[in-house]
Amino acid sequence: MGTLINDRFLLECDQAVRLYEEYAKPQPILDYHCHLSPAEIAENHRFADMTEVWLGGDHYKWRAMRAAGVPEEYITGSASPREKFQKWAEVFPLTVRHPLFHWTLLELARFFGISDRYLNSETAEDIWNECNGLLATPEFSARALMTRMNVKGVCTTDDPLDSLEHHKRLREENRAGEFSVKVLPTFRPDKALPLGASGEEGAVRFSRYVQALSELDGSNLTTFSEYRAALLRRHQYFHEQGCRLSDHGFELFEYAEAGTEQGLESAYRQLRSGRPVDRAVCLAMSSCLLKDVAMADAERGWVMQLHIGAIRNTSTRILSALGADSGCDSIVDGSYAKPLARFLDALDQCDKLPKTIVYNLNPASSDMLAAMVANFNGHGIRGKMQYGSGWWFLDQLDGMRRQLETASTMNLLPLFVGMLTDSRSFLSYTRHEYFRRILCNLLGSEMKRGLIPDDFDWIGKFVSDLSYGNARRYFDFGL
Amino acid sequence: MGTLINDRFLLECDQAVRLYEEYAKPQPILDYHCHLSPAEIAENHRFADMTEVWLGGDHYKWRAMRAAGVPEEYITGSASPREKFQKWAEVFPLTVRHPLFHWTLLELARFFGISDRYLNSETAEDIWNECNGLLATPEFSARALMTRMNVKGVCTTDDPLDSLEHHKRLREENRAGEFSVKVLPTFRPDKALPLGASGEEGAVRFSRYVQALSELDGSNLTTFSEYRAALLRRHQYFHEQGCRLSDHGFELFEYAEAGTEQGLESAYRQLRSGRPVDRAVCLAMSSCLLKDVAMADAERGWVMQLHIGAIRNTSTRILSALGADSGCDSIVDGSYAKPLARFLDALDQCDKLPKTIVYNLNPASSDMLAAMVANFNGHGIRGKMQYGSGWWFLDQLDGMRRQLETASTMNLLPLFVGMLTDSRSFLSYTRHEYFRRILCNLLGSEMKRGLIPDDFDWIGKFVSDLSYGNARRYFDFGL
Amino acid sequence: MGTLINDRFLLECDQAVRLYEEYAKPQPILDYHCHLSPAEIAENHRFADMTEVWLGGDHYKWRAMRAAGVPEEYITGSASPREKFQKWAEVFPLTVRHPLFHWTLLELARFFGISDRYLNSETAEDIWNECNGLLATPEFSARALMTRMNVKGVCTTDDPLDSLEHHKRLREENRAGEFSVKVLPTFRPDKALPLGASGEEGAVRFSRYVQALSELDGSNLTTFSEYRAALLRRHQYFHEQGCRLSDHGFELFEYAEAGTEQGLESAYRQLRSGRPVDRAVCLAMSSCLLKDVAMADAERGWVMQLHIGAIRNTSTRILSALGADSGCDSIVDGSYAKPLARFLDALDQCDKLPKTIVYNLNPASSDMLAAMVANFNGHGIRGKMQYGSGWWFLDQLDGMRRQLETASTMNLLPLFVGMLTDSRSFLSYTRHEYFRRILCNLLGSEMKRGLIPDDFDWIGKFVSDLSYGNARRYFDFGL
Repeated sequence: MGTLINDRFLLECDQAVRLYEEYAKPQPILDYHCHLSPAEIAENHRFADMTEVWLGGDHYKWRAMRAAGVPEEYITGSASPREKFQKWAEVFPLTVRHPLFHWTLLELARFFGISDRYLNSETAEDIWNECNGLLATPEFSARALMTRMNVKGVCTTDDPLDSLEHHKRLREENRAGEFSVKVLPTFRPDKALPLGASGEEGAVRFSRYVQALSELDGSNLTTFSEYRAALLRRHQYFHEQGCRLSDHGFELFEYAEAGTEQGLESAYRQLRSGRPVDRAVCLAMSSCLLKDVAMADAERGWVMQLHIGAIRNTSTRILSALGADSGCDSIVDGSYAKPLARFLDALDQCDKLPKTIVYNLNPASSDMLAAMVANFNGHGIRGKMQYGSGWWFLDQLDGMRRQLETASTMNLLPLFVGMLTDSRSFLSYTRHEYFRRILCNLLGSEMKRGLIPDDFDWIGKFVSDLSYGNARRYFDFGL
Repeated sequence: MGTLINDRFLLECDQAVRLYEEYAKPQPILDYHCHLSPAEIAENHRFADMTEVWLGGDHYKWRAMRAAGVPEEYITGSASPREKFQKWAEVFPLTVRHPLFHWTLLELARFFGISDRYLNSETAEDIWNECNGLLATPEFSARALMTRMNVKGVCTTDDPLDSLEHHKRLREENRAGEFSVKVLPTFRPDKALPLGASGEEGAVRFSRYVQALSELDGSNLTTFSEYRAALLRRHQYFHEQGCRLSDHGFELFEYAEAGTEQGLESAYRQLRSGRPVDRAVCLAMSSCLLKDVAMADAERGWVMQLHIGAIRNTSTRILSALGADSGCDSIVDGSYAKPLARFLDALDQCDKLPKTIVYNLNPASSDMLAAMVANFNGHGIRGKMQYGSGWWFLDQLDGMRRQLETASTMNLLPLFVGMLTDSRSFLSYTRHEYFRRILCNLLGSEMKRGLIPDDFDWIGKFVSDLSYGNARRYFDFGL
Repeated sequence: MGTLINDRFLLECDQAVRLYEEYAKPQPILDYHCHLSPAEIAENHRFADMTEVWLGGDHYKWRAMRAAGVPEEYITGSASPREKFQKWAEVFPLTVRHPLFHWTLLELARFFGISDRYLNSETAEDIWNECNGLLATPEFSARALMTRMNVKGVCTTDDPLDSLEHHKRLREENRAGEFSVKVLPTFRPDKALPLGASGEEGAVRFSRYVQALSELDGSNLTTFSEYRAALLRRHQYFHEQGCRLSDHGFELFEYAEAGTEQGLESAYRQLRSGRPVDRAVCLAMSSCLLKDVAMADAERGWVMQLHIGAIRNTSTRILSALGADSGCDSIVDGSYAKPLARFLDALDQCDKLPKTIVYNLNPASSDMLAAMVANFNGHGIRGKMQYGSGWWFLDQLDGMRRQLETASTMNLLPLFVGMLTDSRSFLSYTRHEYFRRILCNLLGSEMKRGLIPDDFDWIGKFVSDLSYGNARRYFDFGL
């Protein structure tokens, strides 16, 4: 008896098992993109119960519970933690074939040692008690969860305004040998770009952002040119704090060569006072800032990340009640090959194209995107342009397989920097195991079928590189 | 010897066979979306020969015959029924790997007991005679074909102007125990929406529609507001006749919040007299009517269906010669995530979003669409928002597998309401068997591979739910 | 030991092996679309070394080498042929799962007999010497490479301005029995269409083209009407030289019904003098010329080819340094169902739609495209409208399988005209073997699984038809 989780989980032939056991499993984890709270790491947070650690901010589970007809009270509402856990336990058996099914099984097995039974309405009480008991021990603190999973480094995702105080403390403790995980920030300036400032609300939001940056920077930022310089000073500051990645989120990728300097300055003055400007000008300003950041990335040897294709907050009802990241985001459609080509080309032309990872959310764009980024490889940088791992809705069995397929045919798979969690949860590191098993099964089964050489030195090297080695070499983290 | 059709057809492991035999096969059929003629059911139509019942209106076969180089005379022209059948028999062997191949084999086997030989030029004469002999018996009347396949309910597709006289008769006979199948109408107001009324022809067509509704309603419909009210009276009438679904067909889904009331009224007056108005106004009027119907759906507990992505009548030559639905429709491309989000959100904001099934024709939109509808689950309704089954060109082996894959990862598969025929033919019920075999093979093989639990109570329940149970519960038909 | 290349390569069951050995392998090759140099065939070119024959113009390998971090000097720069070969040998092991991996293995095995070891940094020296030794023999001349592979015919790709002198010589030698391969031209008028003439550079390019055609034609071409006639005279000339195909390349397919004759004439006068005109007028003129050529195709019984979806020269840096076709082309995204429908319909309405093959580069458009072309089958022409084989980035294992899947469900697979190389290299004929093995494995495995009849006469016939027979019959080459 027991769940699906055993040594051969997802490994459907002996070659796959050998690749996993010998080349993948021993590798540590470099989680180069996540949304963990630096504060929780710094404070070495302890979790009250399974509902906090598992359901608290997990919009995947919220979506599943809503689909299953659970009233909102038991999802994000006033029900007790125990009641919410019970509802989730009732829904879990319905997640068969959904990403949550395997993720949940792995998390219960690897963190809590539960692989002898499935979560459901009947086992809920026992599992609740058993897991909460473990959470009460020091082995289940935030940091302990990380070190137990052999994590060597994580990169959080941070606004340019962030003081990075927690990162500073963590870096000192890491240097002093008190905490073995390198915790580095990522420069994510989405809010610093006035892309949404063609509407009243967006314009006000942007003017507040400028004001906050102005105060932090100690300057008035009365011109767009000063604003640009101040943003780049934050880039410099992040660099000093060990940051080596930027990140940008887009609905569809848009890019427009900047209009006249005068036009941008005039628009900036208007935005500075909270009044909206034309969409086209917002885009020109945002494109200008995006290019600034990309050029700074290149100069400082950073990696630029682009996340493309999410449509956010589609339900006004949920957004009003619960705020962003509440389970009503999904995938947008549309074309962006040409603006993306223009953006990458603009940087490439002046030798300021940084190493780049592009993640996309709509599988209909995958082939376009993977082939596009490969156009800009060069300058003797191995694996410079990356088609990123399966992201969000695609971070699952079929999505990962498709990503590996596309990365293989449109670029060179052995140079891929591999998996990340993109997660808010300390229990997501099993996502790396999941990826590695899928990778090993793919390669093992193709060895068996005579599609790739059954040479374990050759192919095994790729497996360890995709598990850790490529990421270690690609990112300049000193690991 | 014999054809591919045997007990293990499409079932590639013992787990798949068991799931099919124990959980799928015993389930009755609820065909909640089709295009059968209510008159033919009411009259209990008898078919003259195989050409009438099988080739008469089947544009799938017409396309195949055209591709194979059969002259139009033998497809839709003046050739005799026997000659047309012969040509189809000659083409059939070329349909290997085309959906028609398996469909045809199943229809010959299940309705006519022919699974010992393939249709081809040599067997055509015997099969013609044998099948025509059977068609001459009472067991092959329209109603007998339905009851033989264990059909419990069907929903036809009807214009708001329809009197529903046949449905009335059928409902009475059903109540009286004279006919075991519930035959219900579906409210499909495509022609009531002036989306195409920016052209001369479309404007005239719309004005005629208004006139017809005016006569039926016994009112002048001089204002748009009166027109809207009259259309909703038809919705009410359909409800009284047992209707519980609406349906809408779109090329790409479009939606625009209505302009000023005054503007719509003025445009309506122009359209009422047969003169075209701007495309944007047509869209605003259509969006307004679409929202009206959706809100009425929600109020009366109906299910709203959206069919998105068909481009119609691409060949003027064929359209002129044969009219619509003659085999020159196909798949359109383009983006519609944002207007769809706005439409669903507009309804959701005022708590008037009905249960909804969205079907799409372009696989490039599948992930977007399935993830999008799931944004709007909620209100404690189990499986409220549905990503519909493989439709039209996607109603085949690969298309169904992809639909199940997408429905699994983007929503919760066990809540899916399952298959329908969408067919004009009384011989299409085998499409349900086809779907169930594909479903059972998918789940059975994943049991075998250790991807899902090999627990037949657990997974078998899903199979019977997807075959019949979910649809029975989701639709309020009193079955 | 040895590489993956053996008799069962890609053939994973006995049925697949039998289909390949009995029905596919014996078939000759008709390579109806390629980019070979007619001059090199006419001169029976001899290759200096492996770097010339294998790396010289191969932008696939250049992309892989750039991705792997090879400095440009060793790709397209001043390094010696031996050094470049060494770098390629070092990169080769990283191409596992990339199309280049299998292609390279097949080319080394079939042309040079090397299947006992893999190319890598250590084997490079031996393989370099061994292959160069062979290249020095007459058996490795351009023509010998073709006849050895059992090639019966090839169609090169030629500008309307081309004199076709090499084709003439080759045709005479073919008639005289001196060279067994029919080498025919293809009419590719991309440069004759002013689609890019809305920019300065494009306008100048077009005016030069008009001038060159004017000189060749011996007329002034002062009006658009004269230009159209002159272009069609080249069509006539190509026909006389045995040409039976046209070909057109598009980013996204665009089509606009011509404006007024007067407007086009006025725009032509402006372009003739090298001054740009509006994009919309450029499109109207191009559409007009495209339709002219298509109608001429229909009148002369040619096949029209449309290649849709490539975005060219995305890197200004590479374009400036190396010119076009240097490895920075990729896949564009966007919609084109409607203009394509209008174009095909415009031809179909006047009974001037030629046999047509449409190739697409973005898999997101595959289903749309395959279903669309099938709308226009008819006129009793078997397999008239073709969804073309996997092209460029899709000319690989997964891409070919997907093409076969789509061609099967949206059209009739047994009528498909099959594979082509689309290549600049004399070593690409193994691509036909690759396709045939994939085809046989697909059909063989479906025989085994009971999805298609295990009738070798029936299915084997399709295999030989898709390997050669269909192309022989479809194209009017007198083979």
